[in-house]
Amino acid sequence: MISTSVADAFRSIVGNEWFLDTPEDLATYSYDGFLPEFMPDAIIVPGSRDEISNIMRVANREKINIVPRGAGTNICGSSVARKGGIIIAFHRMNKILEIDPENMCAVVQPGVVNADLQKEVAQYSLMYPPDPASLFVSTIGGNVALNAGGPRGVKYGVTRDYLLGLEVVLPSGEVIKTGGKVLKSVSGYDLTRLMCGSEGTLGIMTEITVRLIPLPPAKATLQAIFSDLDDASTTVSAIIGSGIVPTTLELIDRVVLDVIANYGGAKFAKETEALLLIEVDGEASSVEGQGKKIEKFCKERGAIEVQRAGSKEEEESLWQARRTAFGAVASVRPNCIVEDATVPVKRLSEIIRKIVELADKYHLRIGVLAHAGDGNLHPLIMTDLKDKEEMARIDKALDELYEATIAMGGTLSGEHGIGIAKDRFMSLEFSESAIDIMRGIKKVFDPNNILNPGSFL
Amino acid sequence: MISTSVADAFRSIVGNEWFLDTPEDLATYSYDGFLPEFMPDAIIVPGSRDEISNIMRVANREKINIVPRGAGTNICGSSVARKGGIIIAFHRMNKILEIDPENMCAVVQPGVVNADLQKEVAQYSLMYPPDPASLFVSTIGGNVALNAGGPRGVKYGVTRDYLLGLEVVLPSGEVIKTGGKVLKSVSGYDLTRLMCGSEGTLGIMTEITVRLIPLPPAKATLQAIFSDLDDASTTVSAIIGSGIVPTTLELIDRVVLDVIANYGGAKFAKETEALLLIEVDGEASSVEGQGKKIEKFCKERGAIEVQRAGSKEEEESLWQARRTAFGAVASVRPNCIVEDATVPVKRLSEIIRKIVELADKYHLRIGVLAHAGDGNLHPLIMTDLKDKEEMARIDKALDELYEATIAMGGTLSGEHGIGIAKDRFMSLEFSESAIDIMRGIKKVFDPNNILNPGSFL
Repeated sequence: MISTSVADAFRSIVGNEWFLDTPEDLATYSYDGFLPEFMPDAIIVPGSRDEISNIMRVANREKINIVPRGAGTNICGSSVARKGGIIIAFHRMNKILEIDPENMCAVVQPGVVNADLQKEVAQYSLMYPPDPASLFVSTIGGNVALNAGGPRGVKYGVTRDYLLGLEVVLPSGEVIKTGGKVLKSVSGYDLTRLMCGSEGTLGIMTEITVRLIPLPPAKATLQAIFSDLDDASTTVSAIIGSGIVPTTLELIDRVVLDVIANYGGAKFAKETEALLLIEVDGEASSVEGQGKKIEKFCKERGAIEVQRAGSKEEEESLWQARRTAFGAVASVRPNCIVEDATVPVKRLSEIIRKIVELADKYHLRIGVLAHAGDGNLHPLIMTDLKDKEEMARIDKALDELYEATIAMGGTLSGEHGIGIAKDRFMSLEFSESAIDIMRGIKKVFDPNNILNPGSFL
Repeated sequence: MISTSVADAFRSIVGNEWFLDTPEDLATYSYDGFLPEFMPDAIIVPGSRDEISNIMRVANREKINIVPRGAGTNICGSSVARKGGIIIAFHRMNKILEIDPENMCAVVQPGVVNADLQKEVAQYSLMYPPDPASLFVSTIGGNVALNAGGPRGVKYGVTRDYLLGLEVVLPSGEVIKTGGKVLKSVSGYDLTRLMCGSEGTLGIMTEITVRLIPLPPAKATLQAIFSDLDDASTTVSAIIGSGIVPTTLELIDRVVLDVIANYGGAKFAKETEALLLIEVDGEASSVEGQGKKIEKFCKERGAIEVQRAGSKEEEESLWQARRTAFGAVASVRPNCIVEDATVPVKRLSEIIRKIVELADKYHLRIGVLAHAGDGNLHPLIMTDLKDKEEMARIDKALDELYEATIAMGGTLSGEHGIGIAKDRFMSLEFSESAIDIMRGIKKVFDPNNILNPGSFL
């Protein structure tokens, strides 16, 4: 709990109306995409960098925990006040400050919603490639803090690859700038990328410069249905190994497809075991050629049906299953745990087999949705958080899943972060020395451990 | 100086023949691409990670400076023993450990020469994009330590963009692993990218996993001659702003072209003020279209001649001026200082004008070679390091150059690093708080300050 005098200090910085502490406010900010609840002491909604700087000076002096939070869509619990304290919300700092087509970049405040930026830059025939599934609500600040990925990652990479510069308020209240509009910079240590994916533990971003690229003039969308999961996943490795770089290469397994069908979504032939959703983009002529090659690849590897969208409407219809997936899965049981594991692409079928095996072994209902093209899997565990016995089985299954992931040369998280969801697995991926280095870095930025304490370190 | 007992300890780790301390050896390693000499106490040439780990244990205990060094081509003095100590050379650790086409990556030892890797992966129709001018001698380890760029950076980015994972020996001798063959990872702080560009100050890389991409099937090479430097540089901004992403967009100014002609290289019409060398790559059809567009752009903006290579030979001949440049410039005066400044692309003509103005003001001979497409300039200062009076004028010109660069939203170094060449300018780009953070990070990795001490921090 924070004292009245400290609360007053915060109120005087942002104004009464932007210091929220009613029970309804606290409840609203008590959870994020990761489900367990942690009640904050208050929420502050600052309007400027200087206000944030002043907030941090007070918080640092009084040793009050601060958790920066975008739209709260992250699913690793990195935007909840695990150890109590104050949440800083960014919905007032949501301006696109500049779109600079000549320098192919944009400067935004952290609260800008990803889709809003995409829409705005498209007017200049430009694209901001990172496209997390949450893009219609999640913010650029949150995307940078989590280094968000998305379906286009196969071709275009992740948020980090489009991050050029930052303005950051340190826990001390001091402001630093890193990078800028330059496309290349090797001055000093790379603080820009160190901030990216640091999950709100090192500093608070107040201005973000992102790189834009030309909007590709054409694209092709294909859907391939397989009666064998292995055929589908080896097709993925074959496409990636063939020299084609698809924009998107998504896999949905039968468990998820069944759920989608029951939810009233797309229905597929009874023998369907997996679906691949594939997009390529670029100049029209090259898209044409790549589309044909992919069609051939899928058929050669046992696809029972390959469809290619001939219009914008057909394209939307092919995406429909993928877009319905989360909603459908969430409707099956009270809760859905979205996991995130990544392996080298070649090991894709192996890790999918492992998930099927674990579902069977621990009597769990697990579907698989994968950004298959970059080996990034999202096992979806349909469960009930209140069912302690089932949750214990899930814990065991996750232990085995992440042990297997790391044994295959994989990583604990491809794009969702560690947060409090996976901190217990850190020692699988990193040696004690590496974790010590991370803890040391945390201390350099945040000696009083007030920024998002208890998250992953 | 190191004591006999310590020297013996190092000898017993690597074997007598790999501990070098004859005057000839010391002289060889006393300088790098940055010219001033700093004599090391010895050179060690380890053969394995474990040897390096043992070397670091001794060095850390005895507080002996260690400077890791690839081919020594860097031009910022980050591979010389500024404060004395031992240089670790990597020519024994020069193996390509694995090329993995299915996962689109390669695992190499730090001493692998860039061009050797490129040649090897081309056999799998793959490409390792970073192409520093030094690629025929410089090593992947050095490239990562300096985050090397190159002409292809406009389209393909820099070394950082292809770095997937590292094995690193810490100053303590402990070994950590970061990243791996996965294309996406957001586990913990991004130590992989923090190491990239850290100039040998944080740890010693012993294994490097790099991302590969499909080798583009076609390319087009064009050369455009301008009688006005401004026309050339605005053409650069226009191309970049048009949605075309050239592979390479190099600019050479008249000063350098004259030097090349006198050196016996390519000769250009008397009125030539600047040359643009432009490449596009990709599928044949798209290359064709882009080539035509660029040709049109150049002509519309006042190019007096545009040539397009019709054969491999013509392509080589168009590159000839660019490739001869460094040799030619180095032959004019006893020394050539290669500077490195980067601005947002839109400010290109402005910074070039500034350089011309500085050359005039301080009576210096400065040519400009630029990776113009990403705003990265290499002013080439032809001088004599022994001429104290001229060197003082150069210092003044550089003060003004980097002040102007930063004022334009630029950065001290686009691809060459800071080292000891530009440490005095760090406070232009970074606030004291940001530099303190960097110093803190250094201390976390290297509490005894034995790794490349005196370099940029």
